[in-house]
Amino acid sequence: MPTSHDPQRAPANQRSVRRHNLGVVLRHVAEHGPRSRAAIAHETGLNKTTVSSLVGELIDFGLVEETAVELRGTVGRPAQPVALGGSRVIGLGLEVGVDFLAVLTADLAGGRRVAALVTEDNRGRPVADVMARLAGLAREALRRAAEDGRRCAGAVVALPGLVDSPSGQLLVAPNLGWAGVDVPALLRDELDDPGFPIRAENEANLGALAELWQGAGREFRDFIYISGELGIGAGLIVGGELFRGARGFGGELGHVTVDADGERCACGSRGCLETRVALGALLRDAGLPAGASVAQLAARGTEPRVASILHEAGHWLGVGVASAANLLNPRGVVVGGYFATLAPWLVPGLEAELATRVLAAEWAPPAVVTSALGGEAAVRGAAAAALRRVFADPALVTELPATAA
Amino acid sequence: MPTSHDPQRAPANQRSVRRHNLGVVLRHVAEHGPRSRAAIAHETGLNKTTVSSLVGELIDFGLVEETAVELRGTVGRPAQPVALGGSRVIGLGLEVGVDFLAVLTADLAGGRRVAALVTEDNRGRPVADVMARLAGLAREALRRAAEDGRRCAGAVVALPGLVDSPSGQLLVAPNLGWAGVDVPALLRDELDDPGFPIRAENEANLGALAELWQGAGREFRDFIYISGELGIGAGLIVGGELFRGARGFGGELGHVTVDADGERCACGSRGCLETRVALGALLRDAGLPAGASVAQLAARGTEPRVASILHEAGHWLGVGVASAANLLNPRGVVVGGYFATLAPWLVPGLEAELATRVLAAEWAPPAVVTSALGGEAAVRGAAAAALRRVFADPALVTELPATAA
Repeated sequence: MPTSHDPQRAPANQRSVRRHNLGVVLRHVAEHGPRSRAAIAHETGLNKTTVSSLVGELIDFGLVEETAVELRGTVGRPAQPVALGGSRVIGLGLEVGVDFLAVLTADLAGGRRVAALVTEDNRGRPVADVMARLAGLAREALRRAAEDGRRCAGAVVALPGLVDSPSGQLLVAPNLGWAGVDVPALLRDELDDPGFPIRAENEANLGALAELWQGAGREFRDFIYISGELGIGAGLIVGGELFRGARGFGGELGHVTVDADGERCACGSRGCLETRVALGALLRDAGLPAGASVAQLAARGTEPRVASILHEAGHWLGVGVASAANLLNPRGVVVGGYFATLAPWLVPGLEAELATRVLAAEWAPPAVVTSALGGEAAVRGAAAAALRRVFADPALVTELPATAA
Repeated sequence: MPTSHDPQRAPANQRSVRRHNLGVVLRHVAEHGPRSRAAIAHETGLNKTTVSSLVGELIDFGLVEETAVELRGTVGRPAQPVALGGSRVIGLGLEVGVDFLAVLTADLAGGRRVAALVTEDNRGRPVADVMARLAGLAREALRRAAEDGRRCAGAVVALPGLVDSPSGQLLVAPNLGWAGVDVPALLRDELDDPGFPIRAENEANLGALAELWQGAGREFRDFIYISGELGIGAGLIVGGELFRGARGFGGELGHVTVDADGERCACGSRGCLETRVALGALLRDAGLPAGASVAQLAARGTEPRVASILHEAGHWLGVGVASAANLLNPRGVVVGGYFATLAPWLVPGLEAELATRVLAAEWAPPAVVTSALGGEAAVRGAAAAALRRVFADPALVTELPATAA
């Protein structure tokens, strides 16, 4: 019930300052972990009374909660720390891969609540069919969120190609064979306009953000995230931020030339890194059927061809990544996507090429680390990215629609 | 004479706010061009009385001056616009090239006051000799600045290799054959510690800044500047700022691999872009002596080999730049350095490869433009960079030493 002290009834200007400060407090807790109201006041420069009131509102919103553990300072009464709350909102991450569809929901506290991966070859299937299947996965995830009393703050779809910014139109995905597909609009239709924003983003960019926020990239503020499946993408993190280029088309590592007169690529060029390293080429070169698990074969060790092909692929990957490192001077290289499972065979060649080909390797060698998020990185990044708007403006949770079933 | 209203006698805190505001006003005039005090007040949000006082102090410093032209507004008395003044300070730009030394001074108004280029092969010469020659050029430029009553705000040295940040140590310059040379310290000694800061920076980075501030890059906020001499470098401008990478070693376009099993490069790797495009290789391939003017020979048209070699070089350049464009998604490519003079022969191949090899070329083709600053870009950028501290803190001009002869 609104009272005379209800902050929502404050004049517009005061209310907008308050909305802003709600974000300051929520982001502070997100970035620095559970802490007392007094610590938040001290660290943000907001006064204690304001912080208590803001925390109260964030608790009402279900975005923070008082933790069970009490922290005792050196003096005074024990302080009850507050932490991010996971009970109110979710972000919906979706992914259209070349041969799979994925869904994942994440809550504000970083919890991964629902995840599903459906293996199916999307090449050559009508776009409408794929979108209907994807919407089915989304509806199921939203239904389960609604059962738990959670509302969806937004959805982000990871796509394996060039995504126009800010329209979210998929301009081209060479390995998928799609061009000019407005994925957010199609999904919005399939979901009967669910009342939360739907965006699309390149899958490697989202994978890189997941690594930055939750994965192997946390230790770096400048790194190249390599995502490999049937194609190869990269997400570039520069100074702790996603680097997208002037129009959002940066990070196309798979189309860096490694062999100028080499094989024709699906993109129309020749000798792209993808032609030497992508999974399809690896399988074909080994005389193995597409769909065979290269990692399992390599681990089993019964197919010596597989190990030697992977070693060579690692060298080619190193040639391409070294070019990127010469241009970008990153602190780290995160081997992700399908490549994470192949890391034991790929990384030695990759590191050897970096040592030889990166001019600054003697002074600033990029550290090569393997992703622990594996194939889930992009869809995790998508779910986390969908929640970003809550951190920007926590009060919007009061405006979210009850999740449709 | 200090008076009771002398801003320099204000309490420390007020004085530091005032120093800050002097910078706000000076940068505003630099970025937006000549304008009245009223316009400055309106556009910066500072009050009119403060702006008048700040402008008065900047005029006393010799950093801005009243222009002859009067602008008349729609109402009221004519406003006397103020513009950047060129009479007080200079920035000293220096460059150690593989086969030349250069010096250039620039004033605050963008005027290029003294410039000299001395052709000499610095490869294999003792570092001390080269530094003594460079210091000689610097002293002559400072002497002429002193004659004109100008003081030097700082010096920046452009170097063709990896420069450590912030120490300014030259880690390695493969084409020069130098490694581990503390150029700023050596120059400071040679100049008997002149009392202004001396920094060093990669030449392509400085060339890119010159293009951004004064040249072909003004129309772009995101571009790749290609600098070619005996080696190939690049300066990357992202969102209107120099992109240096985590440790300042970014932009090494010359060491992007274009031919993985190709020729050995001076850096120790194989098939670097430099091995296919650098001037030394071009001359050798054409059977021409080093030092011959490739541009003159090509223009004369009597050596068909020269034109065909340059066309091929343009294609290789395009392979390397396309890789960079796939990663960085720039709006433009500025062909600079020695390559600017060869642009008519190089650009067609470069553009053809960009069209074929850049995945986003259909939607966001990078525009290729030729630098008008040519071989002077880096040393111009160096002089302009040396003046940046004046824009950051205009009051420091009162602390500059009288230039030593």
